[in-house]
Order: sequence, then C-alpha cells, then structure tokens
Amino acid sequence: MNTELGAVPLRVGVAGVGTVGGGVIELLHRNAALVASRAGREIKVVAVSAKDRGRERAVDISPYEWYDDSVALAGAEGIDCLVEAIGGEGDPAHATVRAAVDAGKHVATANKALLAHHGADLAARAEAAGSALLFEAAVAGGIPAIKALGEGLAGNRITRVFGVLNGTCNYILTEMERTGADYADVLAEAQRLGYAEADPATDVGGIDAAHKLALLAALAFGTEIDFGGVTIEGIERISAVDIDNARSLGYCVRLLGVARLAEDGLEQRVQPCLVPIESPLGALTGVTNAVVLEGDAVGTVTLEGPGAGGGPTASAIVADLIDVARGYRRPPFGLPVGQLTKVARQPRESRQAAYSIRVLLADEPGVLAGVAGALGAAGVSIERMQQHGQDGSTAQVVIGTHATLRAQLDEALTAIGALDACLDQPTVIRIEPA
Amino acid sequence: MNTELGAVPLRVGVAGVGTVGGGVIELLHRNAALVASRAGREIKVVAVSAKDRGRERAVDISPYEWYDDSVALAGAEGIDCLVEAIGGEGDPAHATVRAAVDAGKHVATANKALLAHHGADLAARAEAAGSALLFEAAVAGGIPAIKALGEGLAGNRITRVFGVLNGTCNYILTEMERTGADYADVLAEAQRLGYAEADPATDVGGIDAAHKLALLAALAFGTEIDFGGVTIEGIERISAVDIDNARSLGYCVRLLGVARLAEDGLEQRVQPCLVPIESPLGALTGVTNAVVLEGDAVGTVTLEGPGAGGGPTASAIVADLIDVARGYRRPPFGLPVGQLTKVARQPRESRQAAYSIRVLLADEPGVLAGVAGALGAAGVSIERMQQHGQDGSTAQVVIGTHATLRAQLDEALTAIGALDACLDQPTVIRIEPA
Repeated sequence: MNTELGAVPLRVGVAGVGTVGGGVIELLHRNAALVASRAGREIKVVAVSAKDRGRERAVDISPYEWYDDSVALAGAEGIDCLVEAIGGEGDPAHATVRAAVDAGKHVATANKALLAHHGADLAARAEAAGSALLFEAAVAGGIPAIKALGEGLAGNRITRVFGVLNGTCNYILTEMERTGADYADVLAEAQRLGYAEADPATDVGGIDAAHKLALLAALAFGTEIDFGGVTIEGIERISAVDIDNARSLGYCVRLLGVARLAEDGLEQRVQPCLVPIESPLGALTGVTNAVVLEGDAVGTVTLEGPGAGGGPTASAIVADLIDVARGYRRPPFGLPVGQLTKVARQPRESRQAAYSIRVLLADEPGVLAGVAGALGAAGVSIERMQQHGQDGSTAQVVIGTHATLRAQLDEALTAIGALDACLDQPTVIRIEPA
Repeated sequence: MNTELGAVPLRVGVAGVGTVGGGVIELLHRNAALVASRAGREIKVVAVSAKDRGRERAVDISPYEWYDDSVALAGAEGIDCLVEAIGGEGDPAHATVRAAVDAGKHVATANKALLAHHGADLAARAEAAGSALLFEAAVAGGIPAIKALGEGLAGNRITRVFGVLNGTCNYILTEMERTGADYADVLAEAQRLGYAEADPATDVGGIDAAHKLALLAALAFGTEIDFGGVTIEGIERISAVDIDNARSLGYCVRLLGVARLAEDGLEQRVQPCLVPIESPLGALTGVTNAVVLEGDAVGTVTLEGPGAGGGPTASAIVADLIDVARGYRRPPFGLPVGQLTKVARQPRESRQAAYSIRVLLADEPGVLAGVAGALGAAGVSIERMQQHGQDGSTAQVVIGTHATLRAQLDEALTAIGALDACLDQPTVIRIEPA
C-alpha cells in the first residue's frame, strides 16, 4: 500500500519541545520500527524549535536541526509535516501553523484554543494547499474521538455529542466526591500534583472544554466552528455541599460539554451537571475523559481514556502523522470549509431542563417562603426542597426543580438574588440525562 | 480533497440483503447527501444479490440490478466495491469475497468467521490487487474499534486488548444478574426477543467472540491471524449460583475475550471471567459490547457501544465505504500480510490467575477435606471456601483460589472430578483484573 511513498521518509519538524513535543519525539524514537511498518514509511523528526534551546529536557534534541524561529521551521524546505506543540490561540502558534499550511506542509496539532478561534481559516488554507491539518490530540487527549466522529461514525447523522472534556475539572470534582474536601483545597492539591496549572482559570472556568466542544460540534454537525456560541460555566462555585447533595439523590457532579443541533439552532454548552452515579460518566474518575457520540444509525458510542499528559497526547499526534504518511486526506472538519453550514445559536433562554439550585439564606422566618414564591412567580415548579442548617444564623437551601425553561429559571434566580435574606448568588447545576 | 474522485460515484454491490445488507441499503439511502458530502463523492448501491429474490424485505431492492449469483455480482464490471453481508466462513461468502478482491474490487464485510479463517489469504489477494478489504463491522458492531486500533492508536505498542465481544452472551449474563433466573430460562427469553439465534452455539459457546478476538489480536500485535490458537470456553455452564456468588464478592460474570503478547507467546482466550462490579466492563449491561485497548503511550482506552443489529452494523460498513470513497488504503491487518509475524501460542498451562471454582458434591462427611486435599496436592492455594447447602443430600462448594498456574488448576480439577462425592464437572471462572 502506498508503495509509491514507501521509500521516502516523512520528515517532521516539531515546534515546541515541552511535554507534548518532547513526548512526540520520544514516542517516534521508541516505536520507530513499529511506526514505520504501520505507516508504510519512516517517520523521522528532522528539525525542532523551542523558546529556550538550552533548557534541560528529558529528550535529547541535539540530533535535530535547530530553529530559533518556529515560523521559519514551519516553512523550511527540509520538512514535510509540522507538529505544533507550542500551545495558545495567538502567536507564535497561530503564525507558525499558518506559515506551515501556506507552505503546503501537513500539520498535526494538539492546540484546541488555536483551532477553536482560527480553525476555519487554517482549514481553508490547508484545503487550498492540499495539505492535511489534523488535530486528534486537541480533543480528549489519547482518545481517538476525532477519528471516531469524522471517520468511524461518518455514515451517521449525529444527534448529540457530549462528554467530560477536561481532566483537571474531573479530577477536582471526583476528588471532592472521594474525600469530602472543598473546592479550594482540592484545587491546591491538584496544582501540587501537576493536574492543574498555576493559573487554572482556563480549565476550571470551562474555557478549555468549550474549545474542544466547539471542534467536536463542527465535525459532528458539519457546522461552522462557533466557539463564541458556547455558553460556559465553570466549576469554581461547586462546593462540598453540592457534591453531598448530589450523592444523596443518586447523582454526581461532572463538568460536561454538550452539543446538539436542535430545531431552534445549535446548542453548545459547558456547565457542571448532575449525572446518575450509575452512568458511564458518573463512573468516570480522575483525569480521565469521556466522549459520548449519538448517531441515527449506531445509537450511542462511548469512548473513555486519558485526556491529557505527554504519552496520550503523543499517541494522538503520532496517529495523525501515520495518517499523513499513509496519504490519507480529508477536510479537517469533515467537509470542505465552504460547505460547513452557518446555523443560528440556540437561545440559551429556550433550553429546557431540570436543575438543582443551592441558596445561602439568612436563617429567618419566612425566607423559605420567599424563595418558593420567587420560583412560583417565574413559573418554575419545585420537585423537592431541603434545608441544611449551617451555623444557626444561615441556612443552605437546596431546591430540585421540574423541567423548566432557562428563561424562567433565570427570572427566578434574579428574584431570589434580590431577596434581603439571600446572602450569596445561588449556585445552579443542570440535571443531565447521560 | 480527492477532487480527482469527486465527480465519480462509488458504485456498490450488496451481496446478501438481510438485516445487515438491508441496513446498509437503507442507511445509504436515508443519509445519501450527508454521506456524499463526507465521502467527497456519491456512494451508490447499484446491484444486489440474495438467496431469495422474492422474500419480503423492509427495503425495496427493485431499483438495483439483480444477481442470482453473489460471485457474479462480486466480479461485475459495474461495481467498484462489494458489501459482503452473506455471513458464514464458507461459501458462498468466501467465494464471493475472493472473487471480489481478485477482480480488484474493494470489499467491506461484517463477516468475522470468514476473516478469522481466511483473512490472511484474502488480505494477501486484496494487497496484490491494490484494493481495500475493510471489516469495521466484523468486531464489536457499531463501535469503531478496528479504526481505533489500526489507526487511532497506531503509534502505540499495544500491550493488551480485551473486552466484551458478544452481545448475546452479555445479555444473558446480565439478565441472569438482574433477574436471578437461571441460564436456560434467560437463553429461551433471549431467543424469543431475537437476541439469540435458534441455534445459539456459536454465541454462547464463545466461538463468535473468538473470531473477533483473533482479528483484534492480529491487528494489535502485527501477528498472523490464529483463530485456532484461541482457547475458548462458553457461558453454558454459568448458573445463578455463580452470579450470586460473584456478586457477594464484589464481582460480576462477563464473557471476555483477552489477547496479550506475552513473553512465552501469544495469549488468546475467550472465557467467562469475574470482573469488579465497579469496573467499566462490570457496568456493561445488555447487548452492549466494549473493547479495551492498552498501549504503551496512551494507557487505557475503553470503547463501548452496540455490538450488533442492523443500524450499528450498517454504520460500520458505511464508514468503511466512506474510507474507500475517500481513497484511504491500508493493509487490512495494519501491516502487509507478509510482515505479520508468526508467534508461538502461549501454553495454556503456563497462564497464571486466580479462579473461582464451583463443585457439586454429595453432602457426606469428609468431602470438603477431599476437595481441599486435591487442591493442596496440586499446589493450588485456597483463598476462601464456602459451602452452600442444597437439598440436604448435595452441597455446592465455591472455592476462591490464590493466583495459580493453569496446569496446577487443571491437575486439581481432574482430581476433584475423580472424587466419588463429586457429582458434576466443576465450573471454573477466572478472576480478571479489568
């Protein structure tokens, strides 16, 4: 197969030699023979660039041609394919990938932020140049979710794609579940262990999951990438009380990304959700990711695996390199960019779901009636209401609603927040059938 | 992409128009525009063959050219690609696929039995003719497991592949678990519901799972397909007592296929195993399948989904057709047939594991000592032993062993079977870390 290519190695330049780039170099070295036999030709790192040439690294970069400038590496005559492992949506990552595709180089990247913001432009450029732009590593780490969606289930009309797309958040939530500790303590521990960044905002704020969701949605539905259309809530306000309360109802809290092409537009949301303890997503602990794909022919397929880390990310990037070496070419988002459809954003207000609401109230007579009244006035029907006494002067009230329009819920939340007795903005967790 | 192909439809012949073939025709019709846009060209059924032209079908076959003879269809000038949905390892399926690849036609098939027996020869022929031989549908139904293994994880040295590969068995075992009913009753119910065939031997005997395992192993390890090297035990002897006993220990019973390239050879086995209730495989109920892939870079990836049925099987076959239409070509088993290595079979005797053994004994003084003595004499160390009284004259004894060599276990089983008080051949279930 691909015998015309057999004798010619695929020459790879690696831009960025941190955990990801270093992992790719290490894996290509360790499994060189295996990779060559599966790719039908040798895959050979020939050049690298990084911010700091002299930095101590687990991997020896001295055998490779050095570039100070990743953009120069991207356009270098001696490479066929660029691995972008710089990260970040802006330059130099952006300029580097753009230079590579414009020069007709194939690109494999783990950079979800870059693609969520500039994916359409970069895909159009790759298409024009006839080169591959692959990003298996950008979504759910080592799980071959992009391939499953873009190829393995390509015969299906995808009805919904969702999952646990951020390992940091899943680690924090499941550690809170396991230990009973509160958010801040578990976050600190996660930072100590290297599972959370020093500045964790992109992860715990749901941005990272939203980047990935926007890519999955475009691929699933053949729609334009619309990162701006993702409604995003993070896990920062989830407390031990929420986790406890969830468990007592047979649920656990997971940060989900959910995309669905609804009648009134494209639904894309990242938010903490209650999922049944017994569900596959409920069973998912630690930094593991899961992607659930629903198709009209196949039904439901669930993929679970490591969502981050040097090894899993390198596994995904090397799989992309093998596809490049084999000569596979498909449009990055499944369809030529010009065929991706522009669809309306589903209005957040028209979403319908049941929710769990937690409110911190001054423990005074009549406050519960005030909350119940606010819900009733907005047309939100209460399924259950529980008061957890705090220190005598305050009370946590947890309310489970029946299915309600988000518009009604928001109206009720505003009214509750305006109550004199309400001491903090209510915390809201959607109940998700998963 | 593939612009040179864009204008030319891929012309498909479907051999066999039952659940699978009919499902493919229906799906290609329903999602025609979607499939064409993802494939970059139209995928068009042009001809069909089946045993009985006049049979009542859910799908209308009158628009397609009719062939009485599937071999003639396979070689027909008007088709580029054959979907083999006849089934069975022998003719006409075998002759049909052979004729197709020899004529340079691409082939997509769901036929695991055919490939487990004749895969190497057919792959060599496809290779010689430069055509594709794809079989995503042959393993784990709608789950894109073949693609995940052959492409998505192609950068990994695969260390183990295992899973629940037969939906009929999983339905029976999990229904036994759910209802407490015994094997024969649940099997009868499964047959009534269409989850088990009138002659269920291939499924419940583990043969079907073994066919799939042999294909997964070849792809995972780059070894020759060795269906004859799979040690196979079915679920026929699993009783309600086994399920109960497993649950009391925190386990459930699943029919697993497990393949591992060990130092002393290729390990391939299908057998009922105890897996932790809390594990992904323990959570798997009904006809769902799961495939677990372990790689040196990625760690563990688990894929779950529907293992059979018209829709899921059609989903997998149409994905293969889209790959064909896109011009993807890779050797069917990952490497050219000539590069698949011949490896020794791991001797069954040298396998080491803990087991759960159930023995039906006459309820007489000294019988437990006899059983314990037989185990001790063979060097099998007992972790726990429990007697479940039956009707006063017989007793079920369930023994948990420590890790032991299969050779020692077999010696003990022979000795136990030879005891006068032993009323039936012991039932053995391996305890599997999953």
